[in-house]
Amino acid sequence: MHFKVRAATKEDCKEISRMIVELAVYEKMPDQVKISHEELERDGFCQNPFFECLVAEVPEENKSKDGFTVVGYAFYFYTYSTWKGPTLFLEDLYVMPEFRGNGFGKGLLCKVAKVGKEKQCVRLQLSVLDWNTPSRDFYAAKCAQDLTDSEGWHLIRFDGQNLDNLANEAPKD
Amino acid sequence: MHFKVRAATKEDCKEISRMIVELAVYEKMPDQVKISHEELERDGFCQNPFFECLVAEVPEENKSKDGFTVVGYAFYFYTYSTWKGPTLFLEDLYVMPEFRGNGFGKGLLCKVAKVGKEKQCVRLQLSVLDWNTPSRDFYAAKCAQDLTDSEGWHLIRFDGQNLDNLANEAPKD
Repeated sequence: MHFKVRAATKEDCKEISRMIVELAVYEKMPDQVKISHEELERDGFCQNPFFECLVAEVPEENKSKDGFTVVGYAFYFYTYSTWKGPTLFLEDLYVMPEFRGNGFGKGLLCKVAKVGKEKQCVRLQLSVLDWNTPSRDFYAAKCAQDLTDSEGWHLIRFDGQNLDNLANEAPKD
Repeated sequence: MHFKVRAATKEDCKEISRMIVELAVYEKMPDQVKISHEELERDGFCQNPFFECLVAEVPEENKSKDGFTVVGYAFYFYTYSTWKGPTLFLEDLYVMPEFRGNGFGKGLLCKVAKVGKEKQCVRLQLSVLDWNTPSRDFYAAKCAQDLTDSEGWHLIRFDGQNLDNLANEAPKD
């Protein structure tokens, strides 16, 4: 099936927002999504954007059964390793279920890798849930390393009241 | 012991670079460090810096046995959650061994949390190695969640030839 991978524009944020929710449903945490398309427009399409995004688009004649032509996205930003330097972090990679198995996911991932290389990134990193076997297999088939398995890295988070408590105990300037 | 937590300047990069290597030795991967202080100066102190850094500094009379007054650092940058929005990621938190147990690590962590709150971040995240019990205990005591344990998140990486291979297979524009 023909498709195009292109940089997202501000006008794509409603579609991206729809797919963020679809992905969260798949990840079994739909009630976690608090970000609106207005916030995506504000945070991604400003002077110093927090993120960048690619979308996969099909021609009108191949639109989804609900009428969508933007049917996948890759959401990423730049981080930094104190060992290796600039790193691209792929926060979300998603293709609508009815379009899977056509190389859309691979197209998005490879384009993200190309963007990263162009920005001098020496690593592409992402997180995946342990029960998400299709995704883990997808990345493993492309020779990704699982650093949680091989080196023992755990992801740690402070939020809500716990984050407030830390901030409130910060030493005075 | 008296100490000050302050934003790093370009002039601190040699000291930060020294401590990056000390931390990598502790993490049992010293040969992984490829970043020089010149690269830190370039990437952190430019128009759109890749990272920010705080340092812990002691007065001259409390300098380390090797004569250092900059004795700890917190290295971080801004990422973005498609569920919650702006997030601060703490890449490294380090205090020289001879200064541990004096609240330097807590001072750095709390100041990072405060900076994050000021930038509207709703999360502070970081990675920790599973065998690094002192660090895991330190974060757990401050009510951090271990998302690898509780939700099953694994960290995945592409680099070197595997990253090149992906980039080379990117669809044409």
